[in-house]
Amino acid sequence: MLKLAASTQFDLPTLGKSMHELLCALFPLPRSITGDGLRATISAINDILPLNVSEVPSGERVFDWIVPPEWAIDEAYLEDEAGRRIVDWRESNLHVIGYSEAVDAWFSLDELRPHLHSLPDRPEWVPYRTSYYKRDWGFCIAHRVLGTLPEGRYHAVIRSRLFPGSLTLAETLIPGESSEEILIFAHDCHPSLSNDNLSGVVVAAHLAAYLREQPTRFSYRFVFAPATIGSIAWLARNESVLPRVRAGLVLSLLGAPGPFHYKTSRAGDREIDAAAKHVLATDYPGSCLLPFMPWGYDERQFCSPGIDLPMGRLTRVPNGEFAEYHTSADDTSFVTAEALGEAWLACLRIFEAVERNQYYVNLLPKGEPQLGRRGLYRSIGGYQDVPERQLALLWVLNQSDGNSSMLDIAHKSGLPFRLIGDAADDLEAVGLLALAASARCQMKP
Amino acid sequence: MLKLAASTQFDLPTLGKSMHELLCALFPLPRSITGDGLRATISAINDILPLNVSEVPSGERVFDWIVPPEWAIDEAYLEDEAGRRIVDWRESNLHVIGYSEAVDAWFSLDELRPHLHSLPDRPEWVPYRTSYYKRDWGFCIAHRVLGTLPEGRYHAVIRSRLFPGSLTLAETLIPGESSEEILIFAHDCHPSLSNDNLSGVVVAAHLAAYLREQPTRFSYRFVFAPATIGSIAWLARNESVLPRVRAGLVLSLLGAPGPFHYKTSRAGDREIDAAAKHVLATDYPGSCLLPFMPWGYDERQFCSPGIDLPMGRLTRVPNGEFAEYHTSADDTSFVTAEALGEAWLACLRIFEAVERNQYYVNLLPKGEPQLGRRGLYRSIGGYQDVPERQLALLWVLNQSDGNSSMLDIAHKSGLPFRLIGDAADDLEAVGLLALAASARCQMKP
Amino acid sequence: MLKLAASTQFDLPTLGKSMHELLCALFPLPRSITGDGLRATISAINDILPLNVSEVPSGERVFDWIVPPEWAIDEAYLEDEAGRRIVDWRESNLHVIGYSEAVDAWFSLDELRPHLHSLPDRPEWVPYRTSYYKRDWGFCIAHRVLGTLPEGRYHAVIRSRLFPGSLTLAETLIPGESSEEILIFAHDCHPSLSNDNLSGVVVAAHLAAYLREQPTRFSYRFVFAPATIGSIAWLARNESVLPRVRAGLVLSLLGAPGPFHYKTSRAGDREIDAAAKHVLATDYPGSCLLPFMPWGYDERQFCSPGIDLPMGRLTRVPNGEFAEYHTSADDTSFVTAEALGEAWLACLRIFEAVERNQYYVNLLPKGEPQLGRRGLYRSIGGYQDVPERQLALLWVLNQSDGNSSMLDIAHKSGLPFRLIGDAADDLEAVGLLALAASARCQMKP
Repeated sequence: MLKLAASTQFDLPTLGKSMHELLCALFPLPRSITGDGLRATISAINDILPLNVSEVPSGERVFDWIVPPEWAIDEAYLEDEAGRRIVDWRESNLHVIGYSEAVDAWFSLDELRPHLHSLPDRPEWVPYRTSYYKRDWGFCIAHRVLGTLPEGRYHAVIRSRLFPGSLTLAETLIPGESSEEILIFAHDCHPSLSNDNLSGVVVAAHLAAYLREQPTRFSYRFVFAPATIGSIAWLARNESVLPRVRAGLVLSLLGAPGPFHYKTSRAGDREIDAAAKHVLATDYPGSCLLPFMPWGYDERQFCSPGIDLPMGRLTRVPNGEFAEYHTSADDTSFVTAEALGEAWLACLRIFEAVERNQYYVNLLPKGEPQLGRRGLYRSIGGYQDVPERQLALLWVLNQSDGNSSMLDIAHKSGLPFRLIGDAADDLEAVGLLALAASARCQMKP
Repeated sequence: MLKLAASTQFDLPTLGKSMHELLCALFPLPRSITGDGLRATISAINDILPLNVSEVPSGERVFDWIVPPEWAIDEAYLEDEAGRRIVDWRESNLHVIGYSEAVDAWFSLDELRPHLHSLPDRPEWVPYRTSYYKRDWGFCIAHRVLGTLPEGRYHAVIRSRLFPGSLTLAETLIPGESSEEILIFAHDCHPSLSNDNLSGVVVAAHLAAYLREQPTRFSYRFVFAPATIGSIAWLARNESVLPRVRAGLVLSLLGAPGPFHYKTSRAGDREIDAAAKHVLATDYPGSCLLPFMPWGYDERQFCSPGIDLPMGRLTRVPNGEFAEYHTSADDTSFVTAEALGEAWLACLRIFEAVERNQYYVNLLPKGEPQLGRRGLYRSIGGYQDVPERQLALLWVLNQSDGNSSMLDIAHKSGLPFRLIGDAADDLEAVGLLALAASARCQMKP
Repeated sequence: MLKLAASTQFDLPTLGKSMHELLCALFPLPRSITGDGLRATISAINDILPLNVSEVPSGERVFDWIVPPEWAIDEAYLEDEAGRRIVDWRESNLHVIGYSEAVDAWFSLDELRPHLHSLPDRPEWVPYRTSYYKRDWGFCIAHRVLGTLPEGRYHAVIRSRLFPGSLTLAETLIPGESSEEILIFAHDCHPSLSNDNLSGVVVAAHLAAYLREQPTRFSYRFVFAPATIGSIAWLARNESVLPRVRAGLVLSLLGAPGPFHYKTSRAGDREIDAAAKHVLATDYPGSCLLPFMPWGYDERQFCSPGIDLPMGRLTRVPNGEFAEYHTSADDTSFVTAEALGEAWLACLRIFEAVERNQYYVNLLPKGEPQLGRRGLYRSIGGYQDVPERQLALLWVLNQSDGNSSMLDIAHKSGLPFRLIGDAADDLEAVGLLALAASARCQMKP
């Protein structure tokens, strides 16, 4: 079982630096929902974490969707009559709309405009745009640059191909004592954007690398896949896994400093929700709780009514609340090693809370047991106060009738979960507490 | 099914004017809980809405009550020794206590005082008083006038009769697709008072006139009857109807400007409560929600424990909160055409919410269906925001597992009900949604 | 059934004075969890309330605990080389740690320090300390006095004995109409401390003396026993009684002025909780509600998971929130006759609320019954307001479907419980209300 003792020390600066380095290495790769940029990303992660890779062929039906053709791109630019390149895909893969069809033709500026995307409010930034399911092509360009373009003819060149290929899924399963699983998902399809979602990818990869070395109560499954079509494809191919998922997290937007935001599962009151709420409220003051809504990342799929997994989503400041979202400003300087390291530990603490969220029964439930003769209670009486540690023992004894979990008791007592968990360990050690019968231990419906 | 599209336009000024004109026509009629004034009122409504009229004979037992004798009055006045009329029933039927016995005698002022009712705090206004079940007689008089009366002898004349007659009930049933009914009740027994309750009467009559011409999912039953004894008599005679009542409203005090006040059903969480709360919160900011209490209008009967219909009450400013209540100041100038028109539309919107409050099931519940290829989703991705219209589609899909109604989803999403309902229509049209099996569609217990 | 009519008058000043006098008489007795000081206390109470006394032998196992040896003390003092007594047990029995072993030896000041207990923050006060289960000895001393002690030799003398004896329990059972019991517990083991808990002892004794003379619906059991080991011993010996306990209160800290604090039962929603909340909110504005926590007085035992009685705790300002707690400043001047008298009445009102918390059924549930002809409703209609008394009648009629108790109705209506109870009496008297069938009357689980 995963236990982070109060004394457990992590070298978060080093860990954060390692994550940021991986992020920087992944940044320039030309990812999309299919293709070699995506494969190169998986391959780079594989260096620190062995992954099982599978390919879902173009045209395969996954629930209501059909896996699209694979997209490859070799070159893309827009040049003026003088041959000056206005935008060039080699400078930033954001400059081309994802899944643009090939084009090689001259246009007037007016003819071109419907194919040029910019951000009037952020004239220096290049937006990120895609058109996966409708054949189209286009360039993304800084609004300031767009404004300087004189009338004239422009040469639009996109050397891309759409062809029967495949979509790449990657995952690893780290076995624990139980076959029940904690499922962690990070989307890996966005091109040169850091917070969204290389941050989620590197945090997930480093969590997996750590958990592989730890004894854990539950098994941990990490899935890296493109957003939407990727999670849908994974779900469609792994329906038999779903009944084993006890809890899960979608990870994204973890690298830019700012308070954590936990978005609950669809039901809102699952074990993962209680664990995340408690850890964030206790250890990360200022964190925000978001109710479930069917807009966001891949929790839209994991929490669809026919799937309905007990999964929440952990981000820092969520999309829609920071201007850099889906723009060239979400670059490697937008995320910090410190924010990544802190996010890594927050996830670990949430996993710990799920692992330690046992149901116990008090074996001497009539009156309080005499803790003093078991060395668990101070011997001189009469004091006004009671140490928090002893209070935790009394709470665990009082509430352990098999119906209250460690998180329930932490919530009711207002004491930190770890104190409650440690009190339970102490009481179990002296024979006053035992795990509740298996029926009680099951996850809530 | 009743659907008010966002584009639906009503000519509320004309409608309000029509209601106010009817109110003015009804105002002078000498109503009471029985008698020809009541019959004349029903007859006038009949001109715009055919009503079924029934008479409940005096002496008939209705639950715990007995229908009282019918009351008729031809003349009533109080004059001094000089023959000057201090009050005269012909000037205002408020001047005589409802159900006064006949009297024709001379009294000293002191002898008379127990029979004179006035409002010391409102010296210009005449109060409204009744004595239906205890034989008594009396006059209601402006306190200022009362103060000017010198000692002397006064001639009290009330030419009234109490005799075996009947109490008049009137109703209409407008059939809908279903035999389940929406029940609307307005008390029609108060004499020359406008807000209480000619306002409820004219709004109800105009709602009925409109709904007769509309296709509706449910049947609508409008009942006009005297307060208390009338609703009790109607209930006693119509117990077989009650199981079909899916929702209902008691209408009163709708003509004087002021915020809407919705008083919930006895349980407080019925479909009508959810519908009224949503419509008022969304479309009529500043509206107030009142918890159920067993004091007020005829909801006291409809929500008695042995009847317990899912009915709420809609008023504007409720009794007890405006000084003009049950006084001569509640005259035709106290109510406005605008307030009546707005109330009419608010009721209609509440009915619409009940009609459209379906339970659906998502037919492709695993993952999100691909809305883009069905023309329901924009094709270029990557934007920071999502249009409200698309959000409504996602909410309906996510929540439609047969357990959440349209009102539930509107409440959870914070989106307007109409947007949710329209999203459901769109999804049903493309085959993604279907009405839940009948068991789910039933009204809540 | 216990009914305190609105007109019931109590001579609280005299009653408070009587309680304070008993408290002063008990104050100097050298109480501990065993011994003759405890027996003398019980004997003094016995003068106003016949008690059944039982002795639990040292060494008897009571649940997880073993009754300790009996402790007797004849003399204790600390003197300097000049024979001056620094502290003397005869001056205050707080000067010796409860259950100190015998000692008669000379020590340097440094050797002595581990055996001297003082309060640096409250230099004039002597703390109260005990060491029941770990053999130790020591003196409690004002910190100012401790500071004046010069280096030198000190003679520590404690002439105490620990020997096989017994622990004294005392109780009385006052039979009511039903064998269901209200259980009242007050710990009686603290030496010369007034608020904690002679206040609870004298209030309990006077409640019992009063209730013996009243007709009551339930039986009342008053238990006086040492804290912790005493309540555990009583519970262990009286398990067969527990199923009959319908409600109960632990009484302590009732003598020092300050707002009432009611701490709920373990479940928090039992009948006693509803009764106490209502009485305190209605009659004692400023009272506080404390959620259950497993730290405090003997509710720790009564609310342990294997006992889990529906018992709350009534105090004024609780321990931990007043500086005098467990110090010599908790003397007879710290408590007042007025505070004791008020606490006595508050308890009685809570008992009344439990006794009168019936479930009724409206025998004419369809529509409102005609209250006017039964003399329960004013005959002239039309008024703006409704008297509170009539409102109570309407609430009781509307809610009495067998599922709502008098306390439920008081809570929902916002009316005082007594008004609701009196309305039910009136309605029962005219045949409109009847007690619900027995199944409904049972206490909640």
